[in-house]
Parts: sequence; C-alpha cells; structure tokens
Amino acid sequence: MDTINEYIDQHKDRFINELIELLKIPSVSADSAFTQDVLDTAKAVKNALDKAGCDKTEICETPGYPVVYGEKIIDPKLPTVLVYGHYDVQPADPYDLWDSPPFEPTIKKTESHPDGAIYARGACDDKGQMYMHVKALEYMTQTGNLPCNVKFMIEGEEEVGSENLGWFIERNHEKLKNDVILISDTGMIAKDVPSITTGLRGLSYVEVEVTGPNRDLHSGLYGGAVANPINILTKMISSLHDENNHITVPGFYDKVEELSAEERAQMAEAPFSLDAYKQALDIDDVYGETGYTTNERNSIRPTLDVNGIWGGYIGEGAKTVIPSKAYAKISMRLVPNQDWQEITELFKKHFESIAPNGVRVKVTPHHGGQGYVTPIDSLGYQAASKAYETTFEKTPIPQRSGGSIPIVSLFEKELKSKTILMGFGLDTDAIHSPNEHFGVWNYLKGIETIPWFYKYFTELND
Amino acid sequence: MDTINEYIDQHKDRFINELIELLKIPSVSADSAFTQDVLDTAKAVKNALDKAGCDKTEICETPGYPVVYGEKIIDPKLPTVLVYGHYDVQPADPYDLWDSPPFEPTIKKTESHPDGAIYARGACDDKGQMYMHVKALEYMTQTGNLPCNVKFMIEGEEEVGSENLGWFIERNHEKLKNDVILISDTGMIAKDVPSITTGLRGLSYVEVEVTGPNRDLHSGLYGGAVANPINILTKMISSLHDENNHITVPGFYDKVEELSAEERAQMAEAPFSLDAYKQALDIDDVYGETGYTTNERNSIRPTLDVNGIWGGYIGEGAKTVIPSKAYAKISMRLVPNQDWQEITELFKKHFESIAPNGVRVKVTPHHGGQGYVTPIDSLGYQAASKAYETTFEKTPIPQRSGGSIPIVSLFEKELKSKTILMGFGLDTDAIHSPNEHFGVWNYLKGIETIPWFYKYFTELND
Repeated sequence: MDTINEYIDQHKDRFINELIELLKIPSVSADSAFTQDVLDTAKAVKNALDKAGCDKTEICETPGYPVVYGEKIIDPKLPTVLVYGHYDVQPADPYDLWDSPPFEPTIKKTESHPDGAIYARGACDDKGQMYMHVKALEYMTQTGNLPCNVKFMIEGEEEVGSENLGWFIERNHEKLKNDVILISDTGMIAKDVPSITTGLRGLSYVEVEVTGPNRDLHSGLYGGAVANPINILTKMISSLHDENNHITVPGFYDKVEELSAEERAQMAEAPFSLDAYKQALDIDDVYGETGYTTNERNSIRPTLDVNGIWGGYIGEGAKTVIPSKAYAKISMRLVPNQDWQEITELFKKHFESIAPNGVRVKVTPHHGGQGYVTPIDSLGYQAASKAYETTFEKTPIPQRSGGSIPIVSLFEKELKSKTILMGFGLDTDAIHSPNEHFGVWNYLKGIETIPWFYKYFTELND
Repeated sequence: MDTINEYIDQHKDRFINELIELLKIPSVSADSAFTQDVLDTAKAVKNALDKAGCDKTEICETPGYPVVYGEKIIDPKLPTVLVYGHYDVQPADPYDLWDSPPFEPTIKKTESHPDGAIYARGACDDKGQMYMHVKALEYMTQTGNLPCNVKFMIEGEEEVGSENLGWFIERNHEKLKNDVILISDTGMIAKDVPSITTGLRGLSYVEVEVTGPNRDLHSGLYGGAVANPINILTKMISSLHDENNHITVPGFYDKVEELSAEERAQMAEAPFSLDAYKQALDIDDVYGETGYTTNERNSIRPTLDVNGIWGGYIGEGAKTVIPSKAYAKISMRLVPNQDWQEITELFKKHFESIAPNGVRVKVTPHHGGQGYVTPIDSLGYQAASKAYETTFEKTPIPQRSGGSIPIVSLFEKELKSKTILMGFGLDTDAIHSPNEHFGVWNYLKGIETIPWFYKYFTELND
C-alpha cells in the first residue's frame, strides 16, 4: 500500500483530466432539458468502472435515471465494501454568477487551494468525490493491493431526492449485499483538520401555491380590495418562524433529539471561527434559532428555508398587477427521529390551515428523506479513522453535517449495514452555488486515503 | 351633430379595422426589447391624426419616447380642448394565459359584450379609448361639426410612469394652452350606468433588494445558521400591514383625506353587488382594510401591494439553495393630499430600518405620481355630463377610481386647466391582465358621445 503516493505522482495529470471530461457533461437531473446528458454521464461512469478494474459493470434501468453498478469480487469469503455516489449534479443557474462556464471545467489557484481547484458544477458534489473511489480502485487493482471485494452503486437522481433508488435497492438486496457502505459526498472541517461525518439531517421539500383572483388584476382598480396572493404568501411564510426563530408548525419539534450538555460541549470543541465564517460570507451577523450556536443551528437543529419564491411581474421595468398566483419552494432540514413524511404532513396541514379567506392554497410534497446518525465504535468508523491517521497524521473529528443524503437511512434499513461518510470537500467549495470547485489537493488526498480504508477494514474484519 | 349615428353606421367597420391595425404593434414601453415597436406606434398615431383632419401634427422628441402632437385650430377666440392619451401598452406576459395572442387582435362575443369585443393588449388601455377621440375628430371635421379648437397630446410612457411628459409640458406651455383637458383612460360602472371619474389615486412604485450571504449557499450546510434573504423579505413585507390591514409605514396616513359620512353615503349609492364581484373573480371573500367597504378600499383608501417577487431557484424540480439575494416590486396607491415623493421617502426609510442584522437592504424608487380629485361643478364636468345624458339618456354618476394617471395633477399645476375623465371601458375588460379587451359597443359609444362634449363645452363657454 506504500506505493500509493508514487502511483498518484505518476498518474495525477490523467486522474485530473479524466475527471474534467466527466464534468463537461451537464448531468442536471432536476431539469428535463438535460435528460440525454444525464444518460450519457451514466455511460461514461460505466466505462470508467470497466477501465478501473471492475470485472462486471452494468447500467441498471429504474423508473427514473439508471443506476450504474460495478463490482470486483476477489473472494466471497472476504468482506465487501459498497461504494455509493451520484453522477447527477445540481442545476447550475444562475449562470451569470459563474466566473467560468459551469460545464467548461477550469483549474484556478485560490487561497484555500494553492495547488489549484477544478471549477465546474459537480466538481465536488459529487462527480469529483465519487471519482476518487474509481481511481482508488484502479490503484488497488493495478498494483495488486485490493484486499477485499468492492461494489459500486452510482445513481443519477441524488439531487432530486433519489426518487427511484429505494425501488432499485428493494429489488437488488442480493446484488448489493455488503459489509459496509462507503460514501464521499460530504465535507471535512479543514485540510489540516480531517473529519468523518457521523450525522446527516433529513429533508422535506415542498412546493406551495397561493391562488387569489382567477386572473391577474390591475392593482389600481382592485388594490386594497382583494387578497393579493404575494402579500398573503409572505404573511404565511413569515408566520412559520416565531420571534426566536423557532418553527411554528404544530408538532414540528415533538420528536427532535435533544443533545446532552456533554455532547454539545464535545461539538463545541471542533475548531470554528465565527469571524472567519462571517467574513467568508460577507455578512455582519449570523441569524438563527435562539439558544443555539452556529454549528448547532446547522447540524443538530431542524430548519425551514424558502429555496425559491416567485409571483407577479418580475421582468424589466414596472407592472402594476395583482397576480392570480404566487409560489414558493420550501425545504425543511430534519434531525434524527423526525420522520420526513410525518413532518411533510404536519407542514401541509398547518400551511393550509393558516390560509385566510380570499385565497386558496395548494401544498405539493416534492421529496424528502430521513436523517441519520452513525456510531463511532463500528468497524467501518474505526477503519476510516485509522485511514485518516495514516494519511493526515491526525485523528479525524466526528462531525454532524447539516446536509442530507436521504438515502443513507434507507441503506441501513434495507441492506442492514452501516454507512461511513468520508468527505474530502471543504465548506468553501460552493457546492450548489455558482463557482463550485474541488481542490486538486483534496481530490488526490481522497484517492490516497481510500485504499487505506480498504486495508484496515479488511484487517479489522479478520 | 345628429348625423353622428349615421356616420358611425357607415364607417364602423373601418373604425374597427383601423384600431385593430394599431393594436398589432406591440408598443410595450416597459421592455426595451420593444423599442422600435413603440416608435412605430408613434408614427402610426401621427398618420391617424393627419387623416382625421388635424392641420398640424408632429412627433415631438423627449429624453424618452416621443409625444405625438396634433392640432386643428379653427378660431383662436373659440375654446380649446386638449385630448390626452397614450399609445404605449402594459407588458403582455404571462403570454400563456392569453386565449389569443395579445398582439393578434381578435373579435369575440361575450356575455357582457354581445356585439363582440376586441381582444388585444392595449385594446382598452389605452389605444382603443384614445382612438375614439381620433375618430370623433374625423366625424367633426368631415361633417363640419367641429365647434371649437382641438389639440392632441398622445404619449408613449404612461405605463412606465410618464417619466418625461413633465419635461415636455414644462417646455411647451404655449403649444399646449387649452381650456379643458379630455382623457379617456378610465372605466364606467356599467354599459347602462355611465359614470365620470372624479378622482384618481396617486402612485409610488419601488423595487426592493435584500442581500444576505455573498453567494448562493447549500441550504443543508448553512440552513438555520444564516439569514435567508427570501425568509427575511417575506418577514419584512408581511410586517408592512397590521392585523387590520392598516399600512405600518410611520407617517403613511398623516395626510390622508378622510371623507365625511355624507360623502361615504353618497359613494355607497353607486350600484354594486359584492356577490357578483366575488363571483367574477372566483374568490370566496374580499380582503382589505378594516372599517371600509370594497368600493372605499379601492378608491378613497391608500394601499400597498407587491406586484412582483422573486428569489432563489424558480425552475423545474428542486434546488436546496439559500440564495444570496431576493427581490420584490412594491407599489402603493395614494389618495389626494398624500405626496408620492414624500411617501416614497417614508417607505424607503422604514423598509431599510426594519432590516435585521445579517442582511443588507436596497430600496430603489421606480416612479410615481400624485392623486387627483376634480370638482363636479366645472364647465368641463357639466359638458361631459350633458354629453352622456344625450347618448345614454342617463345622468352619469361621479366616481372615484382606484387607478392612477400620474400626469393629471401635473396638468392642473402646469397648464392651469381641469381634466375631465370620460372613460368607456368596463372593470371586466381585464386591462393589465391577459385577455384584455374592449367592447365594440363601448368603442362606438365613445365615438358617439365625444362630439357632444365638444358641442356642450363650446356652448357653456359662450
């Protein structure tokens, strides 16, 4: 295994160029305009797995976008690692805020990435982090260092809630049988502060529609006399938080796991500079639920955010109109024990109940998933921890992430195995934002660290 | 003058076809994509005035779109009527809600328009109503029935706040000298209930921008920890009305004219069916300021409406993003004595003051105008009233409109003459909405009534 750094030095330019080729395909799963590109990306991933040494790969159809499966079974008696990742990406808009086109990858040096970072939609989330595993497999197979069996399950619908992955898993228990699931779709605290994500938030994503009059109206002739759907929508949305920024949906907090003072104290030990945080975002102050720190607010506490809002005239100039309809996309991040379907129901019931006379309200559940917490005493966690110790010479910090990978809790339920989240991205990598990027150093560090996980996990299973 | 009906019978098909040609040009002043069309419309109006019998017409340049001027002076000692109208139109979007393309005029029979109505953007507001005056002039000149002098001032920026009309008037006092200003850019209560608009609301139109973090953020990693500009914007907007739907901007009501019980009682006499109103809009209830009737809410009371709102991801599917910015277009309808510039300042000051830490707020004044009330004992009002009595065989009802024609109060200030608002549109004509239309009956009735105004106004001035 000591040959890994050598191998990376020899092949790193190719590793980078292969990823760049993959990033050029705009595999936006949320927008049907990109359907063919998503399918092309699936093919590209299958080919990459073939080249990396899988002895069986296939593109598995689902009711939605296909799942790319690959495997290399060296001995059924040895443990099996199942790698999960996704080849679809978030929409890239607003395009005009990108410094370079989102699907024309460019390498730029930055303060946090002196060795350069690859700028492109999906660079970090998740094509780049997924591809680290493909290249780690290439190293292990090429140099005879693969100590156990490996399977890949790379999906194309993660950014739209993994709508059909459950369908696929239910039908492929045997094929997906494994001893541990390995995912790189999260971040680490800093390049010199490795961390392993031990918790993820759940998600409930809904779209709301408020309808007032049956047609757009002249705001002079009708203004003040009929309910304006936009004004009403703003009233309804703002009522969803109280003065302490608690969410007002009845029952919302009933099942929220409250951490002990010890656990909160432990969390507080993770290095964090509020000033640096504010400076990086250019905000004069943070904002959130009273009684919790910034790191708690975005990890162990549930949230409700409007992700999009629109209604009326949004073009150039002015239009004095009272629109017939106004819309919003609203997502709630959930914590362990909150059931996303139950929360979605609670939200729907509440939001419909607060609609005043004069408007009609429609709430359309979009997608969602459960939160997840993984124990730090599992073999998988210990193997990952040792792997980081080997390549970073530091013990990684267990960290709760505010993000969601809706599928993780399903993995445990369906496949009865633990998930290990080895993320190599940084918070500043701007995933889901314009100018998403992934550090070349982080990319190569991931490729370097992953084979050690395989080694230690196999040994610990002995 | 008795030959007017005969003349209309002979020429009505041509009258309709000429208007249809004018409606085909998409003169949207709010959107620079239509600049050439707006200019072409000005030319078309000039030609129409030439044909109708003006002995002098010109296209007068301004810093914005030109003003079309025309005149026929038969005797300087006789009174002069100045006709004002506008050749620009509101944006037509949302296009998909039109039953027929907005710039391909179609005539359809409807319940309220059994003789058919012309469907097109601008059919009623204001090309159709403006063109009634052109055809009335044609009749009077062709048949030797023009009893006084007439001037036309048709502008191209009414739908964007008449930004440069003030500039034009200040420089052309002599050219625009008149004894009364005549405008058809309002409505009447019903086809069998003629009315003259005696009041207009003022307008203050602003655009607001709320900026949070310096880039779009992943709502999982940052959700709950930073101010979400959309959530903040909804909170700020909803705080602009209290539980009685009073506007909370400090000082907003200070100068609002309160009507006497008598005046309110008189208003209440205008025929109005709340059930029919609700049914026409397909709403289960009206909504507005506590303590006032629907007709008061949309005429004698000021309002604050959001005309457009946007922020975050508004495309297909889902995007879990906290946007960097959120925006809204907000307009306030003002009543007599409220100064639009003062109100705009009050709004700006208040809106900026309620921005919480964590966001920055920008308020950009867009345009505005003063409200207006005209006395019913003026010669112009009496002449108009007699004209309606002649052609409708009913005394018209004086009515306050909720709409705004920002320029009217400026006319009085600059040109020292009263404005008479003879509107022939109906509330159901959907001006500013998809499927705007103008009844053929109303169009011809306007052409029939206007010459009588000239006759009576000249006689009353004797």
